Amino acid sequence: MFFASDNGSGVPEAVLASLARANAGPTRGYGNDPLTVRVHDRVRAVFEAPQAAVHLVATGTAANALALACLCPPWAAVFAHADAHAIVDECGAPEFYTAGAKLVPVAGEHGRMTPEGLAGAIATTGRVGVHSVQPGAVSLTNATEAGTVYRPADVAALAAVARAAGLPLHMDGARFANALAAIGCSPAELTWKAGVDVLSLGGTKNGLMGVEAVVLFDPARSWEFELRRKRGGHLFSKHRFLAAQMEAWLDGDLWLDLARRSNAMAARLEAGLAGVPGARLVHPRQANAVFAAWPRAAHRRAQAAGAAYYLWPADQTLEGPDDEAVSARLVASWCTTAEEVDGFVDILRG
Amino acid sequence: MFFASDNGSGVPEAVLASLARANAGPTRGYGNDPLTVRVHDRVRAVFEAPQAAVHLVATGTAANALALACLCPPWAAVFAHADAHAIVDECGAPEFYTAGAKLVPVAGEHGRMTPEGLAGAIATTGRVGVHSVQPGAVSLTNATEAGTVYRPADVAALAAVARAAGLPLHMDGARFANALAAIGCSPAELTWKAGVDVLSLGGTKNGLMGVEAVVLFDPARSWEFELRRKRGGHLFSKHRFLAAQMEAWLDGDLWLDLARRSNAMAARLEAGLAGVPGARLVHPRQANAVFAAWPRAAHRRAQAAGAAYYLWPADQTLEGPDDEAVSARLVASWCTTAEEVDGFVDILRG
Amino acid sequence: MFFASDNGSGVPEAVLASLARANAGPTRGYGNDPLTVRVHDRVRAVFEAPQAAVHLVATGTAANALALACLCPPWAAVFAHADAHAIVDECGAPEFYTAGAKLVPVAGEHGRMTPEGLAGAIATTGRVGVHSVQPGAVSLTNATEAGTVYRPADVAALAAVARAAGLPLHMDGARFANALAAIGCSPAELTWKAGVDVLSLGGTKNGLMGVEAVVLFDPARSWEFELRRKRGGHLFSKHRFLAAQMEAWLDGDLWLDLARRSNAMAARLEAGLAGVPGARLVHPRQANAVFAAWPRAAHRRAQAAGAAYYLWPADQTLEGPDDEAVSARLVASWCTTAEEVDGFVDILRG
Amino acid sequence: MFFASDNGSGVPEAVLASLARANAGPTRGYGNDPLTVRVHDRVRAVFEAPQAAVHLVATGTAANALALACLCPPWAAVFAHADAHAIVDECGAPEFYTAGAKLVPVAGEHGRMTPEGLAGAIATTGRVGVHSVQPGAVSLTNATEAGTVYRPADVAALAAVARAAGLPLHMDGARFANALAAIGCSPAELTWKAGVDVLSLGGTKNGLMGVEAVVLFDPARSWEFELRRKRGGHLFSKHRFLAAQMEAWLDGDLWLDLARRSNAMAARLEAGLAGVPGARLVHPRQANAVFAAWPRAAHRRAQAAGAAYYLWPADQTLEGPDDEAVSARLVASWCTTAEEVDGFVDILRG
Repeated sequence: MFFASDNGSGVPEAVLASLARANAGPTRGYGNDPLTVRVHDRVRAVFEAPQAAVHLVATGTAANALALACLCPPWAAVFAHADAHAIVDECGAPEFYTAGAKLVPVAGEHGRMTPEGLAGAIATTGRVGVHSVQPGAVSLTNATEAGTVYRPADVAALAAVARAAGLPLHMDGARFANALAAIGCSPAELTWKAGVDVLSLGGTKNGLMGVEAVVLFDPARSWEFELRRKRGGHLFSKHRFLAAQMEAWLDGDLWLDLARRSNAMAARLEAGLAGVPGARLVHPRQANAVFAAWPRAAHRRAQAAGAAYYLWPADQTLEGPDDEAVSARLVASWCTTAEEVDGFVDILRG
Repeated sequence: MFFASDNGSGVPEAVLASLARANAGPTRGYGNDPLTVRVHDRVRAVFEAPQAAVHLVATGTAANALALACLCPPWAAVFAHADAHAIVDECGAPEFYTAGAKLVPVAGEHGRMTPEGLAGAIATTGRVGVHSVQPGAVSLTNATEAGTVYRPADVAALAAVARAAGLPLHMDGARFANALAAIGCSPAELTWKAGVDVLSLGGTKNGLMGVEAVVLFDPARSWEFELRRKRGGHLFSKHRFLAAQMEAWLDGDLWLDLARRSNAMAARLEAGLAGVPGARLVHPRQANAVFAAWPRAAHRRAQAAGAAYYLWPADQTLEGPDDEAVSARLVASWCTTAEEVDGFVDILRG
Repeated sequence: MFFASDNGSGVPEAVLASLARANAGPTRGYGNDPLTVRVHDRVRAVFEAPQAAVHLVATGTAANALALACLCPPWAAVFAHADAHAIVDECGAPEFYTAGAKLVPVAGEHGRMTPEGLAGAIATTGRVGVHSVQPGAVSLTNATEAGTVYRPADVAALAAVARAAGLPLHMDGARFANALAAIGCSPAELTWKAGVDVLSLGGTKNGLMGVEAVVLFDPARSWEFELRRKRGGHLFSKHRFLAAQMEAWLDGDLWLDLARRSNAMAARLEAGLAGVPGARLVHPRQANAVFAAWPRAAHRRAQAAGAAYYLWPADQTLEGPDDEAVSARLVASWCTTAEEVDGFVDILRG
Repeated sequence: MFFASDNGSGVPEAVLASLARANAGPTRGYGNDPLTVRVHDRVRAVFEAPQAAVHLVATGTAANALALACLCPPWAAVFAHADAHAIVDECGAPEFYTAGAKLVPVAGEHGRMTPEGLAGAIATTGRVGVHSVQPGAVSLTNATEAGTVYRPADVAALAAVARAAGLPLHMDGARFANALAAIGCSPAELTWKAGVDVLSLGGTKNGLMGVEAVVLFDPARSWEFELRRKRGGHLFSKHRFLAAQMEAWLDGDLWLDLARRSNAMAARLEAGLAGVPGARLVHPRQANAVFAAWPRAAHRRAQAAGAAYYLWPADQTLEGPDDEAVSARLVASWCTTAEEVDGFVDILRG
């Protein structure tokens, strides 16, 4: 009963097998090997973006911070939802990589910025000329930190606001596969066709050991990205071991299968919670995470049984009245099983 | 016949097997898993340093840059040999992570700083008070970029100079195992017992996919290191996959076996070159790299036969008189074979 | 009728005379001249802080950014009121000088943080361990950007919250003299006796050409400040010309006279506005700025007559109904005259 | 007898008078005042560069660091003479403002880079692709730190090397007026007509309290410069007091008169030294500084008489044999007198 995070899971056998295959013989380093070249091409094909620049890194924080650093100068304001990983969970990595940009939180229900909210935040910033940081970029997270998704039309609406202000649009896709699987559109439709300039395509939360692809749909800043990556210490010498993971992930659409699996388990959790007395959803469940509240007594039973998950927000405790609802985050991963979910729900039911 | 770099090699089966074992079941992320805790302890034990702080990262550049950033402020001068990786091959990563420190090259034969050379460089810097950057740290590379090693007494002599100037001592140990295997002393003797404050312990060039341990013998800056690592995007969520590699590497002293193997192949290259007409060593061969010069005609034969290695320095070419000696770097890795070496030498002999 | 800013004013004759006196003969540069030494001592005496380190710079932004950089690391959260100059008006200078800290806005009426608001903001930040920036420092502005003041007890209450969280307390005193003159306490009582660790003591808005003193009540970081100042390009070679201004300013308590003068003119504005139909204060008037709203028709008359001031907030316009109140900021300086004030009020009255 | 530095001098009466004139009445801040606008135009006229962007700052270090930050990215190598102020005397300001660029020292006799030396340094850097910092800009100092000058043809030759490598050319003109006065060409001929892209035009060492103009001959990066200046804390609110100084300086070519005066006093020093037994020039004397060596006994007499100057290099001492020559730097300023010079020479003669 592990619902603490989708990064608690391991990797499918196919990924291990791909690593073993890539292990044969010496090869050139730093991404100049044939496997890496092939995987870059593969990502371009998946996104129907033959001109895009693709670069692999090992962590989502690196992907986001490097992408933003390529999009805006040190005096930029970067607009993102107040809950965005780049604002809350990266210990200032975007500030570090951009040499001091300001992350401006944008409010919005269920983890999603609205076009109006974004436009308002942009209008407020930069109103005092040289005295103020200047609007620099927009970053949206899909699927969001609240387990919801932006559909292509939602992305396009935000992209229109960004474009009107002359700002590039970054998508933090740490859970891009989950969003894609939930929506059922094509990768291109959810990204560049909707106005996304740069995507952090996350593999780690969806079945890889630690691989993310940064896709620059406009390759103009590709060389800058490479220099920033090297300078950030993120250029792997044995680069083929990143590429091998991603190749297995894309092969036969494994990435989408894994995402569908975790989404389905989250849906099963949602359905099960519907039968738990006093339980209610906090955010609509759209991808692989369920944000819900239920009585404290049921929390106590679950935790006594060894269930792993976070109270959300984190400043809540299990001290207090039994029947008071306390909210939590439950994240399903590709290796979550129906048995785990059902067992967990049974315990909550009491 | 691959002698281009030791990072062109793959990993031993034991490493793959360890990854497969670590793949079982969900676990806590970000290094809070039992395997990571165990590996940290293991590194401490290997170095007889129970109080040391140990942190894993995936690249040598990250290890060096994060280590130096913990050791000195933005206005520091960092003294290192003119050929040091941190000066020549990291695209300014130390400058980036330290927020602008100045790397000061120190001359020295065969890739080694001398105590006198180091003392002179320190004396020259910082002589104009607030107008100048201030001496901040010393970084030495062992084994060096010239394939030589510092023995414990050499390290201690440099440490004495550093200590006299109030400077901490960092060791870039991207090839630490090779140095250790060459010298035959204990890890402690080559590091903290000789005055090293922080070690970048490299696994990647010696059989891992991408794992380095930063060992802070004084743990006072451990939390700072963790924050800098996160902020640099170098904290792996699925951290156990770094730990698993390093566990296999330390198990049964595999790391030293691998290093001995590559050192032995370099020695075999050295011996073979002795029989090549017109060949001579450029630097003494002490670890797993051979720097040698031999006639251009032999180079042409080797390259025609598909041998991979770099001319060194890189601004030389194969255009020119047949019998003129051109220097090159030959690096042996743990998977270099005696057949490769002998075949290569045979071709050089003509 | 100039109420746009207190930095629109010039300097008293005494300041020019002091510059002329300091102009005699060659002297050592970079602050090693006798005049600078004397002025440093003088500031220490004024603050009853014989151990404090005093350093002069030429702009308030430099004073704040350098002070904050000495107080906290790059991964810090700096808590300040949402309207603080350091957050709104410095184009990211604190982010630049700290190498990427995050400025966290704290809400609060009339430009003032409350202890509860500050405590809440601190509690919210840093709750996720290494993933989050870490609470680093508190910065309060006195007099505030809303023209109000913190009295010693207010400062002490915020300092207690900061201290409880282990955070140093910075005071942006761009208008410190105005606050001091308004309150009538001693400089020490409003600073270190109330828990302030570092003060940016502003001269520029109160009669100097461009001089601020940074006072580190604990001198431990004095040398670091000097290096950061030099590195930031803020160490004047002809330093005596900064010192000469500040000497004239402190002589005979000129600084307090100037502040009393501007405060009195703001009080006169406040009193005059009481007689303007439809006018009302937006913030309590406590120092040298008046934030008030009055009918648009009166604004139009004032601007037609050449009165200079800013609508506040800046996104308002004079387009719209005549009798609708529009808010503005009126700042009095040391050279504002009673005639200016009265003439302005007459125009508003119609 | 003050020859320690040209920044030990004060300012001519005309500068004080100009400050007094500028002191009348309130005005808009931050450079939006009529006087600043007028002075910008004036600089453009002096340089026959109607399209240039002109910005004032208060220190030479700020001028250089801001200029370089506008010219190159964080991963740049900046080529400058090994003695350049930006390398030796700015405590890492260029590294700070560029977010971590690497200053690469270029050797060259008498403080001057040669085209061959520059070309060699450029060729050496950036040879390893993404692993190395990338050639980013060239900075030359005129007059040099050795008191010599680059003539227009010298500048053009270096500019040709820079241009061939795609690098912009910065001129540190802390003593530009002295160079100009020495050569007798026009400001345009010594700058943009010879290939200079950005000039730091120094007023401080030549009669101002602290004013430098950064002239971007291509104004494309003007707005970036303004944002960097503000962010660096270098935008003066009472900007007219910088402009007032520079207006007086340019009026009636006062700047050139002052420079001619200091150059002439240096020439007089040179001539006087010719009559000192055992004295010899270390560098050709071309502007306002004399680098010479003379017997230690004469040094002792001079210092006993209160003469102020630096031994150069600084690691020499007056301990040692009487007749051994020790080298020193003697800098004449606009207020150096013939009496001072002659008196000093008399003492040296004994």
